[in-house]
Amino acid sequence: MDGIDHFWAVVPAGGAGTRLWPLSRQGEPKFLLDLTGVGRSLLQATVDRLQPLVDDRILVVTGQGHRDAVRAQLPTLPASAVLAEPAPRDSMAAIGWAAATIEAIDPDAVMGSFAADHVIGDIEEFGACVRRAAAAARDDWLVTIGIEPTGPATGFGYIEQGPDLADHPGVHTVARFVEKPSAQVAADYVASGRFRWNAGMFVARPRVLLDLLAVHHPEFAAALRRLASAPETLAAVWPTLPRIAIDHAVAEPAADAGRVAVVQAGFEWDDIGDFASLHALLGANGQGMTVLGDRDQVQTVDASGLVVTHPDRLVAVIGLDDVVVVDTGDALLVTTTARAQEVKAVVERLRAEDRAELT
Amino acid sequence: MDGIDHFWAVVPAGGAGTRLWPLSRQGEPKFLLDLTGVGRSLLQATVDRLQPLVDDRILVVTGQGHRDAVRAQLPTLPASAVLAEPAPRDSMAAIGWAAATIEAIDPDAVMGSFAADHVIGDIEEFGACVRRAAAAARDDWLVTIGIEPTGPATGFGYIEQGPDLADHPGVHTVARFVEKPSAQVAADYVASGRFRWNAGMFVARPRVLLDLLAVHHPEFAAALRRLASAPETLAAVWPTLPRIAIDHAVAEPAADAGRVAVVQAGFEWDDIGDFASLHALLGANGQGMTVLGDRDQVQTVDASGLVVTHPDRLVAVIGLDDVVVVDTGDALLVTTTARAQEVKAVVERLRAEDRAELT
Repeated sequence: MDGIDHFWAVVPAGGAGTRLWPLSRQGEPKFLLDLTGVGRSLLQATVDRLQPLVDDRILVVTGQGHRDAVRAQLPTLPASAVLAEPAPRDSMAAIGWAAATIEAIDPDAVMGSFAADHVIGDIEEFGACVRRAAAAARDDWLVTIGIEPTGPATGFGYIEQGPDLADHPGVHTVARFVEKPSAQVAADYVASGRFRWNAGMFVARPRVLLDLLAVHHPEFAAALRRLASAPETLAAVWPTLPRIAIDHAVAEPAADAGRVAVVQAGFEWDDIGDFASLHALLGANGQGMTVLGDRDQVQTVDASGLVVTHPDRLVAVIGLDDVVVVDTGDALLVTTTARAQEVKAVVERLRAEDRAELT
Repeated sequence: MDGIDHFWAVVPAGGAGTRLWPLSRQGEPKFLLDLTGVGRSLLQATVDRLQPLVDDRILVVTGQGHRDAVRAQLPTLPASAVLAEPAPRDSMAAIGWAAATIEAIDPDAVMGSFAADHVIGDIEEFGACVRRAAAAARDDWLVTIGIEPTGPATGFGYIEQGPDLADHPGVHTVARFVEKPSAQVAADYVASGRFRWNAGMFVARPRVLLDLLAVHHPEFAAALRRLASAPETLAAVWPTLPRIAIDHAVAEPAADAGRVAVVQAGFEWDDIGDFASLHALLGANGQGMTVLGDRDQVQTVDASGLVVTHPDRLVAVIGLDDVVVVDTGDALLVTTTARAQEVKAVVERLRAEDRAELT
């Protein structure tokens, strides 16, 4: 199947993935890692699934410190396909810079933004959803892709659907975006059938996205457009941009204004928020030990959970259920799936103790 | 205080310490390790506590593969103080060889045999017990040192006391030796007040020991004595010696014959049979994490148990109680104090899988 006409993919490749320490590090964040054991990093898998939809129309936005690693992982992309941020300034600056860049190159463009560190199950279904989203975006909607919940997750934000869009079957207006809910609220959302998980995927004409930004942040939108026309001003302009997430800057106010649509997506999706999530993703069945790495390097007696191996070191686990063991060259994590999120506390403590080189 | 006249110490340094894998290895067994974090290996600590009692009359019996390591750890001992076995042939051959060697050198000798991989708390009390044992041994008793039980342990053999020895206050005859008991039997033993732990310490004249051996194993005793007079026959003689423990070859039949005495010992003693035992020994108080190694390399959140660190690797443990984490260069163990003994199963599996280099 051919790419979608004038469709561009934007891949924000940021975020430290602190809750996946010690696997994920500042110097080698989550998106650069092969967390699914398929031989491709999350970034590579993201580009792999987008490329059939965009041909060569793709921009990866990452930190300057990761530019070389990103280019090494994506050797077929031209240098101009990697936008390197001088410093992290949250998602609106990253995606807005890409939007302004695309707007300047291709006035007929529709763009879709897809995080570099998410995992998607059914690639065909993903492609079909993006096509539907792109079609609605051509009609000047800001379109998001809402994931069918598989359970009352409290780790994701939700999207409440409104009425159908007349011209776009399977696409609804968005009544509102809501933040990560409590367990009870999440259960109510899922029971209602009206709510989708917010996977942070946005599809829009760059012009529409920037014009929506300009409604509440006119200076920000203007600065991004000036940056696109004068790239040499990056170092001077970048530090002046507001630190704000695209959700708050554009998506939520646009939803209130009735400008946002959502495509109902049936594919499996995960943002691999922590090792419990990785354990679930890698096909844990509650029995035996899930291994990321070399299964020959793991010996278990009456144990279950997740082991991430380090080359050349054997890991033996005896008599522990739902354990998480993550072995790296200079740091080792031992915890449980239930407590996996708390690894963040260890990372923060190491930074406070001036041992950030381990994080 | 001066050494005990004509008193010789024999230190059998053998045993793989399989239940302390991956810390203890075939190539670097338990007795060569500093398991108490004092900067001395168990072997060195054993020799340290014996030297004041024997001056320079000490023989270490070890495998040929460990001779160089033993000599490196004990640089002040002469080469002749290390007897190197061509192959392991159990404790009677090891201790009997030393006995025959001492008998040939010093006809007035009394010897005491003390394993190289045990830990003893009160060195003064230990020395006093050995003096009492040596005094009884001069009267031709085979003397053992029986440890006051601190609880109904099922991991040790027990010694049942008989009547007092008239001439030796605090020394009793031995009614019998018993193997590791069930929990109920152990509780009965401890409640009776008549039972001591068998720490495998034997004090006797070499002549008495070898003559007691000759009662049931005359060829064995004769072979050991020939070996002492013709050390050049070692390679030929050694493989012909029976594989039998000193307990079965000498101590138990001698007890039946009323020839064995026991000194009541008040010092703390442990054979560090597994990581649970090491955890208890290192002063676990049920709260917080016990560390063998570098405490700065351990980060915990709501966790307790034992961590053995490896230089240059941080260990983070979150939300696990009574956990055991043992980190080495090529193998990592994660288990609980309750399951620590089962590490043996992993070692056996590795050997069965032709990966003995990891054991």
